[in-house]
Amino acid sequence: MLIVMSAEATAEQVEAVCAHITRLGFEPRPIPGGQRTAIGIVGNPGALEPGPFVELPGVLRAIPVSSPFKLVSREWQAADTVVRLPNGVAIGGGNVAVIGGPCSVETEAQVMAAAEAVARAGGGALRGGAWKPRTSPYAFQGNGEAALKLLRQAGEAFGLSTVTEAIDHESALQVAQYADVIQIGARNMQNFALLRLVAGLGRPVVLKRGMAATIDEWLLAGEYLLAGGCRDVILCERGIRSFDPRTRNVLDLAAIAVARALTHLPIIADPSHGTGVRDMVIPMGRAAIAAGADGLIVEVHPRPQEALSDAHQQLRPGQFVELMTAVRTIAGAIGRTVQAAG
Amino acid sequence: MLIVMSAEATAEQVEAVCAHITRLGFEPRPIPGGQRTAIGIVGNPGALEPGPFVELPGVLRAIPVSSPFKLVSREWQAADTVVRLPNGVAIGGGNVAVIGGPCSVETEAQVMAAAEAVARAGGGALRGGAWKPRTSPYAFQGNGEAALKLLRQAGEAFGLSTVTEAIDHESALQVAQYADVIQIGARNMQNFALLRLVAGLGRPVVLKRGMAATIDEWLLAGEYLLAGGCRDVILCERGIRSFDPRTRNVLDLAAIAVARALTHLPIIADPSHGTGVRDMVIPMGRAAIAAGADGLIVEVHPRPQEALSDAHQQLRPGQFVELMTAVRTIAGAIGRTVQAAG
Amino acid sequence: MLIVMSAEATAEQVEAVCAHITRLGFEPRPIPGGQRTAIGIVGNPGALEPGPFVELPGVLRAIPVSSPFKLVSREWQAADTVVRLPNGVAIGGGNVAVIGGPCSVETEAQVMAAAEAVARAGGGALRGGAWKPRTSPYAFQGNGEAALKLLRQAGEAFGLSTVTEAIDHESALQVAQYADVIQIGARNMQNFALLRLVAGLGRPVVLKRGMAATIDEWLLAGEYLLAGGCRDVILCERGIRSFDPRTRNVLDLAAIAVARALTHLPIIADPSHGTGVRDMVIPMGRAAIAAGADGLIVEVHPRPQEALSDAHQQLRPGQFVELMTAVRTIAGAIGRTVQAAG
Amino acid sequence: MLIVMSAEATAEQVEAVCAHITRLGFEPRPIPGGQRTAIGIVGNPGALEPGPFVELPGVLRAIPVSSPFKLVSREWQAADTVVRLPNGVAIGGGNVAVIGGPCSVETEAQVMAAAEAVARAGGGALRGGAWKPRTSPYAFQGNGEAALKLLRQAGEAFGLSTVTEAIDHESALQVAQYADVIQIGARNMQNFALLRLVAGLGRPVVLKRGMAATIDEWLLAGEYLLAGGCRDVILCERGIRSFDPRTRNVLDLAAIAVARALTHLPIIADPSHGTGVRDMVIPMGRAAIAAGADGLIVEVHPRPQEALSDAHQQLRPGQFVELMTAVRTIAGAIGRTVQAAG
Repeated sequence: MLIVMSAEATAEQVEAVCAHITRLGFEPRPIPGGQRTAIGIVGNPGALEPGPFVELPGVLRAIPVSSPFKLVSREWQAADTVVRLPNGVAIGGGNVAVIGGPCSVETEAQVMAAAEAVARAGGGALRGGAWKPRTSPYAFQGNGEAALKLLRQAGEAFGLSTVTEAIDHESALQVAQYADVIQIGARNMQNFALLRLVAGLGRPVVLKRGMAATIDEWLLAGEYLLAGGCRDVILCERGIRSFDPRTRNVLDLAAIAVARALTHLPIIADPSHGTGVRDMVIPMGRAAIAAGADGLIVEVHPRPQEALSDAHQQLRPGQFVELMTAVRTIAGAIGRTVQAAG
Repeated sequence: MLIVMSAEATAEQVEAVCAHITRLGFEPRPIPGGQRTAIGIVGNPGALEPGPFVELPGVLRAIPVSSPFKLVSREWQAADTVVRLPNGVAIGGGNVAVIGGPCSVETEAQVMAAAEAVARAGGGALRGGAWKPRTSPYAFQGNGEAALKLLRQAGEAFGLSTVTEAIDHESALQVAQYADVIQIGARNMQNFALLRLVAGLGRPVVLKRGMAATIDEWLLAGEYLLAGGCRDVILCERGIRSFDPRTRNVLDLAAIAVARALTHLPIIADPSHGTGVRDMVIPMGRAAIAAGADGLIVEVHPRPQEALSDAHQQLRPGQFVELMTAVRTIAGAIGRTVQAAG
Repeated sequence: MLIVMSAEATAEQVEAVCAHITRLGFEPRPIPGGQRTAIGIVGNPGALEPGPFVELPGVLRAIPVSSPFKLVSREWQAADTVVRLPNGVAIGGGNVAVIGGPCSVETEAQVMAAAEAVARAGGGALRGGAWKPRTSPYAFQGNGEAALKLLRQAGEAFGLSTVTEAIDHESALQVAQYADVIQIGARNMQNFALLRLVAGLGRPVVLKRGMAATIDEWLLAGEYLLAGGCRDVILCERGIRSFDPRTRNVLDLAAIAVARALTHLPIIADPSHGTGVRDMVIPMGRAAIAAGADGLIVEVHPRPQEALSDAHQQLRPGQFVELMTAVRTIAGAIGRTVQAAG
Repeated sequence: MLIVMSAEATAEQVEAVCAHITRLGFEPRPIPGGQRTAIGIVGNPGALEPGPFVELPGVLRAIPVSSPFKLVSREWQAADTVVRLPNGVAIGGGNVAVIGGPCSVETEAQVMAAAEAVARAGGGALRGGAWKPRTSPYAFQGNGEAALKLLRQAGEAFGLSTVTEAIDHESALQVAQYADVIQIGARNMQNFALLRLVAGLGRPVVLKRGMAATIDEWLLAGEYLLAGGCRDVILCERGIRSFDPRTRNVLDLAAIAVARALTHLPIIADPSHGTGVRDMVIPMGRAAIAAGADGLIVEVHPRPQEALSDAHQQLRPGQFVELMTAVRTIAGAIGRTVQAAG
């Protein structure tokens, strides 16, 4: 923490701030300048909250210097975390994997066809929603446990590990029972009770970035998972809110590069929710891999026009093949390997 | 829903869209124009999802025309909802009330002093956090049930109804047991499981707008509460994310005027979290009332410099008196009455 | 400037940074901490650019501490600047004034009727566009010099000083010839060539905040004007871009409170462009005054439904009277005086 | 335009709106629905302004249906515009080109070294600033005409066409005299006087997207150029404002895919300003090409640590080679050809 005193602060005020720092058990380091004095704080074990310092008379600002992260940080663990799915597919540390599947698990035929398409094209895992967090209470909310059973059946049939979203305590326990990876959606990124619960369920977790979450908030949500005992956390960029009505979200690919420097956790991108439009999923999926993402999570549906949700952003099987081909070339060009199931 | 066909759409494509609309049980109304044809859909009971229509060949866009709201809308109930707190204070329909109290309930002395300050200055209810959703897992998380007991004791001592935040299933049940009003924080605005639970607990609910929630999403979160049986919902604007590092949030007062035209629910503002800086709480509190808010929720602490959280945004008791004086004058100038406890 | 070294920085790297600072003629003040070393720079006359320091080996971040402002800052001039218009109306330092008039000057009858409405209701100055910066090249672009003549005529007839926008070199010279105050629109806030020109034309300037300008950028645009010799600069908040399609802009009233602490210049608000909807102009105009604005600039049209631009955000004369009544009450409640023409 | 009447609108109000549309010379097409009536307008030659319709009694909303674009649109010209630089390099229509060079032209040695690096690595054109629009009036503002001469000399020496920014009337005339391509910066995207001037100078134009410009506003700024007689317009995405303090801008690569569907103009990306951090330029440059950009404009400096501006975002020559290698592979993978000078 660096305390910046106002230009009019008196010597007594500077001394009082130093005394306060000493009382807290830390060491003040005053830096008198031409216009104003600044006071460094050393000896603090972690990040301090600026609030109480700004309270003190004569203080203009308190600038945090220490990083707020611990277990998620590169300083804690320099080497990339590699998450291994039960089917052997690795994500992170140079390994790229693509998770594909329908927005919602609707019928046995639908999820089996989607799984077959994903496996044949070289996908690494199967996604499919059982509980859908919907903006309106009157929209389709997912098929629940029945969907989980179908998802597991389809994953087993095609050698794909399964990923699905938990939205609350009850669904989390069921997801952990049937699926291989638990997804936390953007709306629940700061549902800390859910994060704490999921951290203890013994499953890898895909943690989506909230729609207006800063990179720091996203990593701190990951910190909740690691602090709760979960080692296998996969961060997922899925688009942030912006001002342009033409795009549902802005897929913030630069955040992947920024986060990669700060954390050892693998980072994937969701170009389906990140764009909301089928025609943009392939270019933005390619772009995410080129930006250095460790994988993608993409919606694939055998017949999108019949989908119960997100109809216009799900890829057709042939489009998923096209995407996978580009992903393999681009990943190869930057020294990475795409991991396919089976 | 208005379906806009692309300029190159064929007559067969227009017919196919009309046939699809008819199959769904609605009525198509084609509007051939100079450049392109549009097709209105009538006979639908509520809002339709645009996705499946955009899938059809020749379709350029699908523009929703019906409102997505039902129970929260002015069309459902034209008259303002007035929420009456157990201590008789009314919010809405021309009644303005100010909810004050500490960010976190820390000690008996602290919450009693805060409650006294709030009651003396003409506040209508007492707030105080028992569970704090914190960005970092290492930050102070609140004093839980012990805090709830102290909050109730202070409320009873000074005739103030009590408001406190629930962050999950367990805390919601406890809040409903001890407090008069349940608050849903910005981070949980779309925690739909929590909304459904809280809707059935028989308490009024303060529903904060998410940091990047559109007005429509905020009202639809309210729709979850009303659809779940809760009638007494108070919406609360608390600032939205913006690009300026100098302000933690942008208190979006225009959203109050916009939402008021769409919904009958009372709307209050939180200038403490909406600004994050004590010196801005009073001007923005005044501004919220002038913009037509039905009340404020404001942090007040007897000794802010000792607060365990949000130290630099809590008002001192004397500042709360100053705020209340301005609130009464401004509310009076626009024909509203400030409701004090007792 | 505070240079934060990375945790792995060597003692040699710290020394090299200190040597570099010394070479630049400043003084390094190393602050060794537990995790990392920080180095304060003192003796620099103004703000330094962080870029070159971040280049040096071992440097993690460079945090600016000095303020980037000079002439606009409270540290340069503690007392409020009061801008006096030619008709004697003052803005700033406790004086509140409302500038009203049509979006565009269309006809003599229109601008005379608008001026009469503004003067009768207690407005302080007359606005009216002669050149309109329009998003589309095919939209109405304003009536140019003819409009300037009509605006001056109407101002003289009703004792109102006149305010109108300059959009380029040529229009600026003409505005300076006919009008009392030159307005720089949001799109031109960082048109530095125009700022430099206008600074030398001997007229007060209303400087609107850009739609995505930070408060710092806005004040630095004002710095261009003051550095160019213009003393009478009035800042104007007019709404920033946000993500909600329901509101054209978010009127950022908190920015007024933040900017007031940083600068001595008067700050007004534009609730017409800041909301884009007539029904929100009155509540947000009231709110701006309550937030501490030194005035408003508001669109008033005798017959809005016939306006050539911004039809749906211009107040009718009777609505302007209603606004002025509320403005006087609220300004009075916070110790300010509304200055009327004549 | 679709006029949506409010649920309470009377039959007389619907008739009055239809009569108004007829008076304007267009044709009303009422669509009575269950809840409300909508009225389509046909026969209008281009986009109508919604304002005057929203004024009419009983009208709830007016929804634009026609596109606001004309000359920039795919409907006007279906085939991609290919811009050919004087040195033969093509941009658009499957041709990808990279424009590299220093932020500012500082010295002869600097710009010659940068040009050599760009040419050797396979760049297509040379960039270099002569006038810099700077947020602070006290920051380095560029070397003006002297820089233009050095830029031309370096371009000629290495067979590179030259690109540089014009910031006002005077600089635009000089840029047109010395350079091959005129750049309009983000801050001037809506400086319509400058757009009109530049449109007539007979040079291709690179038009950067404003920091908070919607895609529609960006294309309409391009419409100013085409309407003014300039055919060779290259759009450039350079990052939009967002809420995360860790990234200076969010490079909105999805906007490239969206804009490509709407316009025939080539679209490039600026990963230097779009990220502001050297380590992110290469990954985001790769990502832009993968997303379908027709090229890049990238800052390259022989010795970035000595740069007078943007020190920390300029690539070293070796990094530019690395970027070009990746660009060629990725462009090839999606069927595009990188055009090198010479």
